[in-house]
Amino acid sequence: MSEPTILAERMKSIQAFHVMDILARARQLASSGRSIIHMEVGEPDFSTPAPIVEAGLRALKAGQTKYTPACGLPELREAIAAWYGQRFQVKLAPERVIVTPGASGALQLALGVLVNPQDQVLLTDPGYPCNRHLVRLFEGQPISIPVTAAHNYQPSLAQVQQVWSEQTRAVLLASPANPTGSLLSTELTQQLSTYIAQQQATFIVDEIYQGLTYDQEPSTALSIADDIWIVNSFSKYFGMTGWRLGWLIAPDYAVDAINRLAQNLFLSPPTVAQYAALAAFQPTTLAITEERRFEFAKRRDFLLPALQNLGFKIQNNPQGAFYIYADAERFSDNSHALSLRLLETAGVAFTPGIDFGESAAKIHVRFAYTTALAELEQAVERLAKHL
Amino acid sequence: MSEPTILAERMKSIQAFHVMDILARARQLASSGRSIIHMEVGEPDFSTPAPIVEAGLRALKAGQTKYTPACGLPELREAIAAWYGQRFQVKLAPERVIVTPGASGALQLALGVLVNPQDQVLLTDPGYPCNRHLVRLFEGQPISIPVTAAHNYQPSLAQVQQVWSEQTRAVLLASPANPTGSLLSTELTQQLSTYIAQQQATFIVDEIYQGLTYDQEPSTALSIADDIWIVNSFSKYFGMTGWRLGWLIAPDYAVDAINRLAQNLFLSPPTVAQYAALAAFQPTTLAITEERRFEFAKRRDFLLPALQNLGFKIQNNPQGAFYIYADAERFSDNSHALSLRLLETAGVAFTPGIDFGESAAKIHVRFAYTTALAELEQAVERLAKHL
Repeated sequence: MSEPTILAERMKSIQAFHVMDILARARQLASSGRSIIHMEVGEPDFSTPAPIVEAGLRALKAGQTKYTPACGLPELREAIAAWYGQRFQVKLAPERVIVTPGASGALQLALGVLVNPQDQVLLTDPGYPCNRHLVRLFEGQPISIPVTAAHNYQPSLAQVQQVWSEQTRAVLLASPANPTGSLLSTELTQQLSTYIAQQQATFIVDEIYQGLTYDQEPSTALSIADDIWIVNSFSKYFGMTGWRLGWLIAPDYAVDAINRLAQNLFLSPPTVAQYAALAAFQPTTLAITEERRFEFAKRRDFLLPALQNLGFKIQNNPQGAFYIYADAERFSDNSHALSLRLLETAGVAFTPGIDFGESAAKIHVRFAYTTALAELEQAVERLAKHL
Repeated sequence: MSEPTILAERMKSIQAFHVMDILARARQLASSGRSIIHMEVGEPDFSTPAPIVEAGLRALKAGQTKYTPACGLPELREAIAAWYGQRFQVKLAPERVIVTPGASGALQLALGVLVNPQDQVLLTDPGYPCNRHLVRLFEGQPISIPVTAAHNYQPSLAQVQQVWSEQTRAVLLASPANPTGSLLSTELTQQLSTYIAQQQATFIVDEIYQGLTYDQEPSTALSIADDIWIVNSFSKYFGMTGWRLGWLIAPDYAVDAINRLAQNLFLSPPTVAQYAALAAFQPTTLAITEERRFEFAKRRDFLLPALQNLGFKIQNNPQGAFYIYADAERFSDNSHALSLRLLETAGVAFTPGIDFGESAAKIHVRFAYTTALAELEQAVERLAKHL
């Protein structure tokens, strides 16, 4: 029995990340004694803030290891809703907050309750690759809108209108975005939200890098339109990647369906992680996360001009997340080969653009600044020598 | 915008559990001061064994809170594979073990990589309701095979052959099964496995209650045929429900596709849970889990004849899990109404058969013995008074 005949068709469209090759080779090189600087990792190098870890330890010691309700602990849903009030001046009913196993779980719930077979979901190219794969998983069609640095890596209303069809069910954008660090402007969010609502379709905004913005204070699309679906996570700003905890905010009419799907997909989000996350919004934790935000800002402010000096073209100033998406055309028209070559020669690992789509992907690479400033400085020196 | 126009069609088939009504009413009654005995809960009353909790505490203190590989920590995959060797004399390559966020994650991966739209998956009725909903989620068709106490609540080869069609892609059975506690016999497993392989289809066996058998030693379908897909969990026998950790065992040809889907669906299983689970197979833990198994056996041995004396018909001796599926026709032809009535009058909560399918569901109820013997005795007294 060969793989194609026994496995589902969709698996032909659900590809591995190319960066896995880079990772595997980086591991080989490291185990042979080479020094490798990791700029390919989409995970903060900081550990989980101590108050969150301590809350987790307390929960474990207290035996908090049973199932919770499928949509999460009521007190955590309340804490998240209260956070939107406190931080973003958005009034939000806790019932509309669904706690999920990571933002991955939130995306699954949103797409699972919205997308019929053949329905189209509009996404950006470049964009986070899992999004288009999850649309495909539910037999929908991911439709890519090519976005460029010249337009801040977000689609214009005209672009959305141009690809709109009878089958368009939803638009899924990210702010801050991966791999570009781009933010949705208030004006664009308002325009898109109005248009999408007129079409009786759904606007989903992925805000999993919320909090990690460097030239302006964090914001949420929810403060612009109350019917936008929000995907968020404790992973990035709150440093809780391995805990697998995120959340979805949805309009009232969808909450019952989301709860039913969550019961079937997950039973419940991880319990200790939920108790730990109750400590995420307290001042002692926020003091730590804000300090880290300033550290990320410093790294970006070093790395951006340094890469430009090396010859990478970066037209838009990445405003958030911890990524710089750089045009590397001066060095190569094959970003995968370039990534592999510089891993070998310079011992610097980064992600080829082809992991994020097809639009000019072969001339772009993504650098993550999830490593200390001193290492970033060394990486730039090494790249200068080997480019 | 009304719910049906905006939400995906599939959500009409993905229903809430009816036991949620029972639970909500039980909570109301309890908060008004009534004593409620819970026999509706599919979760062990025992806490997570101390050696596992301690391993979790150690991992948290050591800062083990980052992503792991999508298919789980290599050392945990090795530990699970070694466990099959030690406990079941099954030689298993660790690469074939995929660690998942709960057995729910394992089921999602298996069905996601196997089921095309319109593909049929054969399931038992009664059976675990999430299974048919997950088939529907991926646009497959769940096909129910009615099973009865007279045939140990498992389908015969003839039944499977009878419903087989061009579109049949997989057969998903459970052993021990929920809600019936039934085990697959070696002979039936062998027969079905041979037939299903001849049809180039897939046999999936849900063994999440493995270890919880009372008249015979635990077993695995994997020792009968190496190409059976196995879904398993740390939740039940190892008492780790809220940690959300399970595993999938699949043939070599499917592992790469499963890894790709796991990357997209989950990124990684919860990290602390994985480190904690490394302590699951050690002798100090197994001493605890085996003691609990004997306690469950005692409860079953009390409850089974007691329910029969009350007038419930239980033809087959439930051999595993922690459920008794009882024919309540003598009392009612509406199991949901009966459940609600006895909750009000006797203060005893149990699950109506309609949560598990349609076949004779209105005359069956499920009792869980996930509560202490003394409480079970009291429940029987109360039922005797009010039936």
